[in-house]
Amino acid sequence: MANTNTLYQHGTLALLVPGLLDGTITMKELLEHGDTGIGTGEGLNGELIILDGVPYQVDSDGKVNVVKDDFTLPFANSHFGEYRDLTTVEGLSPKELETKIMSLTSANTFFSTKVHGTFTNMRTRAVKKSHKPYATLSKTAEEQSIFTRESVEGTLLSYYSPTIFDGAAVGGFHHHFLSDAHDFGGHVLGFGGVTGNVTLQQFDTLEQHLPVNNKDYMNYDFSDWDILGDIHKAEG
Amino acid sequence: MANTNTLYQHGTLALLVPGLLDGTITMKELLEHGDTGIGTGEGLNGELIILDGVPYQVDSDGKVNVVKDDFTLPFANSHFGEYRDLTTVEGLSPKELETKIMSLTSANTFFSTKVHGTFTNMRTRAVKKSHKPYATLSKTAEEQSIFTRESVEGTLLSYYSPTIFDGAAVGGFHHHFLSDAHDFGGHVLGFGGVTGNVTLQQFDTLEQHLPVNNKDYMNYDFSDWDILGDIHKAEG
Repeated sequence: MANTNTLYQHGTLALLVPGLLDGTITMKELLEHGDTGIGTGEGLNGELIILDGVPYQVDSDGKVNVVKDDFTLPFANSHFGEYRDLTTVEGLSPKELETKIMSLTSANTFFSTKVHGTFTNMRTRAVKKSHKPYATLSKTAEEQSIFTRESVEGTLLSYYSPTIFDGAAVGGFHHHFLSDAHDFGGHVLGFGGVTGNVTLQQFDTLEQHLPVNNKDYMNYDFSDWDILGDIHKAEG
Repeated sequence: MANTNTLYQHGTLALLVPGLLDGTITMKELLEHGDTGIGTGEGLNGELIILDGVPYQVDSDGKVNVVKDDFTLPFANSHFGEYRDLTTVEGLSPKELETKIMSLTSANTFFSTKVHGTFTNMRTRAVKKSHKPYATLSKTAEEQSIFTRESVEGTLLSYYSPTIFDGAAVGGFHHHFLSDAHDFGGHVLGFGGVTGNVTLQQFDTLEQHLPVNNKDYMNYDFSDWDILGDIHKAEG
């Protein structure tokens, strides 16, 4: 039986900062740990969202592609979905949505939320794939495309990590989006308001997997970097 | 077959800081995740070290006790031991030992080392069990006993966590000790020099389990605390 209490994470947010962007897990491997998830491709090749076992990539042209088993990722989360109804919301901003969710659950463990509904003024981004030698995260992220929709129906898939895991994971919420029509999505930069249903799945375990077979990662000296500072600039 | 690539952790170092010292895992449960490990008991009840499947507690009187299955812990690590020979050392200080180990392995993943040998001027500590309502870590840790041996044979069991996991785990090394005679040990404060064999086991996965059934933990507001600052004071 699938373990629905565990959130799987491959890589860390931290390793993206200096540009350790090799794909170190395949989508096939990632899907062994869940039917739901998010991530980015090798060289920050687009924004990934896995829904009901299908891995979608929003590329830097804004196209939504289903990726193959051998697609690789430097950083990703997945889990086996078993969400419970949490609440319904009407016209909430991202900030209001997060506040609402936090009022109904604990801030001290990992969880995922899925919000299905109508989003106004949705803004997403996807980064353009870069190639070796990779630049830093902040440099590579400059090559991002921004996509907007005035009104769009779809799914906001989010992971929440307790603050103490900031750097390994994205402390707080990390939101990806896919439209119902599968023609729009990406890493969420913001939206005007959401009206829809909020479901939640709480975890008791983070299974943190590190790319120990990647020499660039294992030999890297992180000590010169202000990892948290750079993360908050790039993901903020 | 036992999974020797995974380090299991129950609780976080962070939760000890404000004094969330309830025992939230039993020794029986902890031993299901390994035959080797370290931890502390409910209310900081002594320092634990698990060697070859046997859980020893060094209490605040300096006595070494084998604890029962129902002994509970707020924070602990365990894993299934499969160490490989790394090096031999002669008269190294703790700093020199750590530097030697780091020159032979990667700083970017979790690992454990076991050093068996002779230690001079070994200094350990064990905290006295406190009861509810618990005080903070720094307050509770004031009730520590310090034990010294001029020369002692035994095992230094250590876990290393990458810096980015500081706060969840103990960033860098965390050392516990048990004498071969099982009459001395605890959390290591320092030693003069060690001469002996160093073995190492590298992990690719941290299985981080959180006490989601403990209301005090789940409802706690960590946002007022300088968690990392307090940790470095107490564990430094």
